[in-house]
Amino acid sequence: MAVHTEVTDDDLVAFVARYDIGAVVACKGIAEGIENTNFLLSTDGGTFVLTLYEKRVREDDLPFFLGLMEHLAARGIPCPTPVHDRDGEMLSRLSGRPAAIVTFLAGMWPRRATPDHCAEVGAALARLHVAGADFPMTRANDLSVAAWRPLLDSCAGGADSVAPGLGGELAAEMDHLEAAWPSDLAGGVIHADLFPDNVFFRSGALSGLIDFYFACTDAFAYDVAICLNAWCFEDDRTFNATKARRLLAAYRRVRPFSAAELTALPLLARGAALRFLLTRLYDRLHPSDSVLVTPKDPLEYLAKLRFHRDVRGPGAYGLE
Amino acid sequence: MAVHTEVTDDDLVAFVARYDIGAVVACKGIAEGIENTNFLLSTDGGTFVLTLYEKRVREDDLPFFLGLMEHLAARGIPCPTPVHDRDGEMLSRLSGRPAAIVTFLAGMWPRRATPDHCAEVGAALARLHVAGADFPMTRANDLSVAAWRPLLDSCAGGADSVAPGLGGELAAEMDHLEAAWPSDLAGGVIHADLFPDNVFFRSGALSGLIDFYFACTDAFAYDVAICLNAWCFEDDRTFNATKARRLLAAYRRVRPFSAAELTALPLLARGAALRFLLTRLYDRLHPSDSVLVTPKDPLEYLAKLRFHRDVRGPGAYGLE
Repeated sequence: MAVHTEVTDDDLVAFVARYDIGAVVACKGIAEGIENTNFLLSTDGGTFVLTLYEKRVREDDLPFFLGLMEHLAARGIPCPTPVHDRDGEMLSRLSGRPAAIVTFLAGMWPRRATPDHCAEVGAALARLHVAGADFPMTRANDLSVAAWRPLLDSCAGGADSVAPGLGGELAAEMDHLEAAWPSDLAGGVIHADLFPDNVFFRSGALSGLIDFYFACTDAFAYDVAICLNAWCFEDDRTFNATKARRLLAAYRRVRPFSAAELTALPLLARGAALRFLLTRLYDRLHPSDSVLVTPKDPLEYLAKLRFHRDVRGPGAYGLE
Repeated sequence: MAVHTEVTDDDLVAFVARYDIGAVVACKGIAEGIENTNFLLSTDGGTFVLTLYEKRVREDDLPFFLGLMEHLAARGIPCPTPVHDRDGEMLSRLSGRPAAIVTFLAGMWPRRATPDHCAEVGAALARLHVAGADFPMTRANDLSVAAWRPLLDSCAGGADSVAPGLGGELAAEMDHLEAAWPSDLAGGVIHADLFPDNVFFRSGALSGLIDFYFACTDAFAYDVAICLNAWCFEDDRTFNATKARRLLAAYRRVRPFSAAELTALPLLARGAALRFLLTRLYDRLHPSDSVLVTPKDPLEYLAKLRFHRDVRGPGAYGLE
């Protein structure tokens, strides 16, 4: 699953010696995460996560991701903090890959999300948005509406093999979203991938937000829409309005929605559903030997997209 | 790679509460190991390995494996110690699978084995054999000579597709080994799979032996022969006599070889090479969807088998 790059023990010992975190005690590849190679690194000084950035992450983006985690952690967001080496650098190289060491966060991600989890996520997402307001770097969202058309085009030939009529349905959806997509909503740093496996809880309380490698600059409400899709549907693809109400209510207690955000939410949720549908569809139609995981089902997101398309207004999410 | 069974956070918390090891802090799937699902489990009480035993491990064998680890650990062998729950049990169930918690061992396995590593392994293997002498349980080696013929038969149709003439060469080898395999060598508990990824080192010293799930009752010298194959060949499949001499010399300082063992060593090494060749060949010809790893190359072990077949006597391994 997650060890794309092997690290020799000699290379690791030399690498870790450049940091003030003590000597290596043990280092185990973590079987979570798809894009990068992650190791749980134990040293005399504590436990850390060592990440080797693989090809799907652009090296130019790493200063944004690492700088953002440091910025947020300094403002009390429970996210991994990059460790600086003795030269002050957060980013280095190991086994031919860009590499960084970040602090380890306790907790487990919830396999079954409850309304309480959703409320914690909503509040944490709003705090993240507020804490990121004075982060000086920006990064365009390269998986927003402008990226969906090329993704759709590269899937056009195979879409109907996944579900009859899917190609036409997505083309119509694409036309609508391109025409209606808002550009004037409040924005700043968003996480853009806050799925349950990126949120840790300990004794019921949120203890960590991880995986900032899709973070970018975009509308805050779009990040909320991603969470609605990721947290508020059941395994049978039905929408749980109680979870949505808890998530949104907790969010707006920290950061209130504007009228424009409220109005836009169903459209943003459709777009967020299309975004994950398209990347999953692309992975299904262009399987990669190097990613040893079962591709996720794109049709899960077709069900979500249809739900949001049929919504009459934000009231469907428990908002008024 | 290694997470075949998912564990929900609720199930895990309830499971761990049955042990005196404190509450769960974190739990990460480990991307090593193929047969079972392993998690690195952090609790208030320390770090442990949680293993869920998958279908390729026979449930009836688990008391042998766990009992052996406890027996060896009590005699100073640096191997994982099973943790007993409050009812005194080492074996339990989690997510529908047999499950156990064992102590965590510091160290890393050597990606490039050196002669020093080989000497440490030889000494540790001999100490394991001595420490196991009074272990009361036995388990037949179900991957010894009697198992090779059926494995070969099930590969017969495809062997020549892996290498021209391979089927005939293995059939001749099989005939020879069946006729000549010794049955009167000193024996007891053997590890039977002591490859580099099952041996941890810390600052150059051996700090752990893991993965006892092939352990069984067989000739000690056969275990030595497995290690000769696993540790003393280079990546280009050439034999490193310096490493062999160091491994064997360190072994015999702890547990001397009999004349019969010395004489049998080349034959045992051929047999050990055939054993790993056959299981790799079987996995190559019968790929399983459920094991998300690249099958190992059976021909690596053909080269080793041929080396041992051409050896004139134990002197080739640095012994006299």
